[in-house]
Amino acid sequence: MKKYSVRVYVTLRASVLDTAGTAVESGLHQLGYEGVEGVRIGKYIELSLRAESQEKAEADLHEMCDKLLSNPVIENYRFELNPVEA
Amino acid sequence: MKKYSVRVYVTLRASVLDTAGTAVESGLHQLGYEGVEGVRIGKYIELSLRAESQEKAEADLHEMCDKLLSNPVIENYRFELNPVEA
Repeated sequence: MKKYSVRVYVTLRASVLDTAGTAVESGLHQLGYEGVEGVRIGKYIELSLRAESQEKAEADLHEMCDKLLSNPVIENYRFELNPVEA
Repeated sequence: MKKYSVRVYVTLRASVLDTAGTAVESGLHQLGYEGVEGVRIGKYIELSLRAESQEKAEADLHEMCDKLLSNPVIENYRFELNPVEA
């Protein structure tokens, strides 16, 4: 079995209104940071994963993202996978 | 003024118990993904920022992270900054 360190980025689809992002953007403007635009807030997930191969690890990750880590209706996901010493 | 695309990663300090991460980890195990370990969940923020220089943009970002985007008591942050065509 190999071990992988994984980073998953879950973001709202562009078509979805990001109310949290909008709220943070107006908060930053009120603090005086007028130069800020287009704030979008998502999830950043770190985990480690044991699998027989990189292909198996990637297949599992796609399933995990579809089933639990993201909501496919309103969110996109991408991930980065790096082998680490087991 | 220059324009920068920014990615901010806000994560819990290692010493802080990640209850959400723990819940997601046990959920993944229940779904059959036994090989998953050490799930940590944080925030991933995308925004664009106008500033006179990269140094000014970075200074502003440190302030924004300290004041609003992260909770310095329990969270760490890091960011990536790339110039884009204004």
